[in-house]
Amino acid sequence: MTYRVHIRVVPRAGLLDPQGQAVEHALAALGFEGAGDVRIGRAIELAIDARSADAAEASAREMCERLLANPVTEDYSLVVEA
Amino acid sequence: MTYRVHIRVVPRAGLLDPQGQAVEHALAALGFEGAGDVRIGRAIELAIDARSADAAEASAREMCERLLANPVTEDYSLVVEA
Repeated sequence: MTYRVHIRVVPRAGLLDPQGQAVEHALAALGFEGAGDVRIGRAIELAIDARSADAAEASAREMCERLLANPVTEDYSLVVEA
Repeated sequence: MTYRVHIRVVPRAGLLDPQGQAVEHALAALGFEGAGDVRIGRAIELAIDARSADAAEASAREMCERLLANPVTEDYSLVVEA
């Protein structure tokens, strides 16, 4: 069965995020008040053929560890949809 | 009150996604079978001060329309957390 997996990779809390800071300044320049603590990461979506949702999740976690996320500087979370 | 907003911006279905194709090839080269249809976008998280969750969502949607997403080539979705 094919599962749709949604992965979110974001810079670890406490690490500098220059892209997020640039967006925060741009939002303020556009007049948006009350926006802060902007963090920018990657949203990855993919289809995985697997026997079960658990198998798809395990496969996706290994992809994150080996390719999609940098375990030193980034955190990831994922959601598996049938 | 401060709301945490999670935004996901991905290339529209049907549009070329070279970054996604590169990741798909890299996954295959690493031996991951059964992975396909990879799409790569941006995951944006920010804090918004607003009077209600609805107001925070409206503000975040306007940010997407004006700055965070390209309405011609990208789709966005968002989730507001208290």
